[in-house]
Amino acid sequence: MKFHRSFRNIGISRIVQVSEQAKIVAPSFEKKTGEPFIYFQRGEVGYPTAPFIADGFKEAIEKGFTKYPKLGGEDYFKDAVLEDFYNKTTFSFERDNVVAVHGGQQGLELVFSLFRGKTCTILTPCWSCMFDNILPYTESNSISVPLDPENNWSIRWEELEKALSVSEIFYFNSPHNPTGKVFSVDEIKKITYLCEKYGVTLISDEAYKGLVYNSRHGDYSPIQTGYENVISVNTFSKTFAATGFRIGYVLSPRKDIINFITGGNYTETAGLSTPTQYAFAKAIKHPDRKAWEQAYWDEMHSRRTTLVENLPISLKAIAPAGAFYCFFKASSFNKEQEIVDTLMENGIAVVPGSAFGKEFTGYIRLSFSTLNNELIAKGAKRLGSVLISQGIDNDYCHQPLC
Amino acid sequence: MKFHRSFRNIGISRIVQVSEQAKIVAPSFEKKTGEPFIYFQRGEVGYPTAPFIADGFKEAIEKGFTKYPKLGGEDYFKDAVLEDFYNKTTFSFERDNVVAVHGGQQGLELVFSLFRGKTCTILTPCWSCMFDNILPYTESNSISVPLDPENNWSIRWEELEKALSVSEIFYFNSPHNPTGKVFSVDEIKKITYLCEKYGVTLISDEAYKGLVYNSRHGDYSPIQTGYENVISVNTFSKTFAATGFRIGYVLSPRKDIINFITGGNYTETAGLSTPTQYAFAKAIKHPDRKAWEQAYWDEMHSRRTTLVENLPISLKAIAPAGAFYCFFKASSFNKEQEIVDTLMENGIAVVPGSAFGKEFTGYIRLSFSTLNNELIAKGAKRLGSVLISQGIDNDYCHQPLC
Repeated sequence: MKFHRSFRNIGISRIVQVSEQAKIVAPSFEKKTGEPFIYFQRGEVGYPTAPFIADGFKEAIEKGFTKYPKLGGEDYFKDAVLEDFYNKTTFSFERDNVVAVHGGQQGLELVFSLFRGKTCTILTPCWSCMFDNILPYTESNSISVPLDPENNWSIRWEELEKALSVSEIFYFNSPHNPTGKVFSVDEIKKITYLCEKYGVTLISDEAYKGLVYNSRHGDYSPIQTGYENVISVNTFSKTFAATGFRIGYVLSPRKDIINFITGGNYTETAGLSTPTQYAFAKAIKHPDRKAWEQAYWDEMHSRRTTLVENLPISLKAIAPAGAFYCFFKASSFNKEQEIVDTLMENGIAVVPGSAFGKEFTGYIRLSFSTLNNELIAKGAKRLGSVLISQGIDNDYCHQPLC
Repeated sequence: MKFHRSFRNIGISRIVQVSEQAKIVAPSFEKKTGEPFIYFQRGEVGYPTAPFIADGFKEAIEKGFTKYPKLGGEDYFKDAVLEDFYNKTTFSFERDNVVAVHGGQQGLELVFSLFRGKTCTILTPCWSCMFDNILPYTESNSISVPLDPENNWSIRWEELEKALSVSEIFYFNSPHNPTGKVFSVDEIKKITYLCEKYGVTLISDEAYKGLVYNSRHGDYSPIQTGYENVISVNTFSKTFAATGFRIGYVLSPRKDIINFITGGNYTETAGLSTPTQYAFAKAIKHPDRKAWEQAYWDEMHSRRTTLVENLPISLKAIAPAGAFYCFFKASSFNKEQEIVDTLMENGIAVVPGSAFGKEFTGYIRLSFSTLNNELIAKGAKRLGSVLISQGIDNDYCHQPLC
């Protein structure tokens, strides 16, 4: 009996592999050197979850919001989400433009399942979970269009247009994992123009919304362009440092698409936890939110500065404008595994670039979200001296911190 | 652009349709008659959620169990589930025999997706969500084997064997929705014998585990037969009257299957809410559990008795041995919609039998889980007089209450 290929095709996450290896290596490294092992590999948010989430849960359970959720999401959750979104745009979306989902991941899995087997353009480097999980599980074909690392991760427009001309969907992610790029309003408008030209549906992964360190850009969503065929996928994992709660939402001008996603969401899980919806609806409108978000943003901004300032300039790492990753070339193409292993031996776990697209073999991704400033500084210096001792030669320009 | 057929094929639930119709009809019925509208259609648990769930949530959030869940489920959740299961069987399952899922529904959706496109034998009448959602979403072909309503919903063995001989999977549900039948140990052993004979994987939906009113049977699971190809799908929705929390687990001797389900679960949602896992792990072992369960069982038992004792004997409704439904013939085949509409006009919402398999057109399902004894008695009497006034003729035997 052969199980369905969608399951057989799921890959083993390189991030999980690195983490497993680190579990084995870390204790002996720390014992031997007396120095801390530095975990730069994880995309977890190492910041306390917004404490006011707890109030909402308590209230939900006390008031009996503990029974089957409404199809597609509770009205109070949808209203809170829409009110929150109205702060950022002038479009008038209604409840049937939104569906509550189990985090951004289920949002993406459902959208890609709706387009099962279709061709998808992706910009690389690209979130590794797309390659390992979402694309194989939904039997999607992908066309990679590499961003230009030598020019601040700019889009190669001709290649993008060629790919879109033969695609049904386009996966777009800004702020971007793993580069930290925040695409400009102009870039986003040009992207939607091309999507419209070729009848391509734009899937916008906005997981890092709000984590933008450069005020020039802000967090502009493709949905704000007014292009109809945009599906915006959102999560509260990063918004409230609440990755363990699995709550997000999908928003689109296309009510038919939202209706299909609602059917898929119901079929897969009978809907999203009612007390969780209640707690997050309260959190969205909580009086403490603004102050909490500012402190959280300040901390992430400070960690980013610490990382970039402690990496030797010769590594030419580009300062991320958003999200909480730094991605740069660390070795020649065929030495990726060697350099990752060498870093591991020196007490540093990183994710190899090939996990984000084979064109980026030799790069590494560092996450600055899980560590405090002291560990980030220590790790960045140690990583710098290991890489320099290996003789790195990067021939593109270093972008200054903005 | 055509969306994938798995989404286009999802049906509109008859239960939701009836509920929507009831929302419109109920206010005018109540105003006109001064009598309460009786909602017999919903499968919700109308009993307060176990209050100790709240303690676990509070503790989870205070202690910081708020970050990304472990792949496949937290160790403490798996350990609690296994310990709970050990009370009922002697098999030694390990953590990699279990995966935490978003309720029984995700468990079933994942298992059916693993067998996407395969042929599944089902006993009818069958939970309507299989026809409306799970089977179409996973592109499964189904072969219906009707249970015998004239002989206490017994299995037609020859037909079952014929169906299994050409199937890859068998969907089995005991205690059974909608009949309330609890399959005997002998029946379950014979079923697994036939599954083994034809290499069929048995998918055991144990959503109503513990809701058994007849001590002769108990809640024996096919997994206890020792047959290797059994996948047991479980939920805490009914266990703790906690339908809104979306938590359950899949258990199988086949570690390879659990590994695939783990991959699917991760791909779909990045795993199950960490604080929810924590709260339910605590609830499973909570000192108040036994007393709470007894009170809950007593209430459900009492509602069942009230329903059956207040239905006229001439309706020949079989007293359910488990779950919280009663299913019987209420009209001739071609008058189903008429009788459902007539009941609605008389202030009673029921689910038409055809929702559970076309062979059962003319039957109706009543749920006694959502109403208190007073409303159940009132509703049963009113329903009886409406049906009798329509001239019901049931020619099978009435089974006594056990």
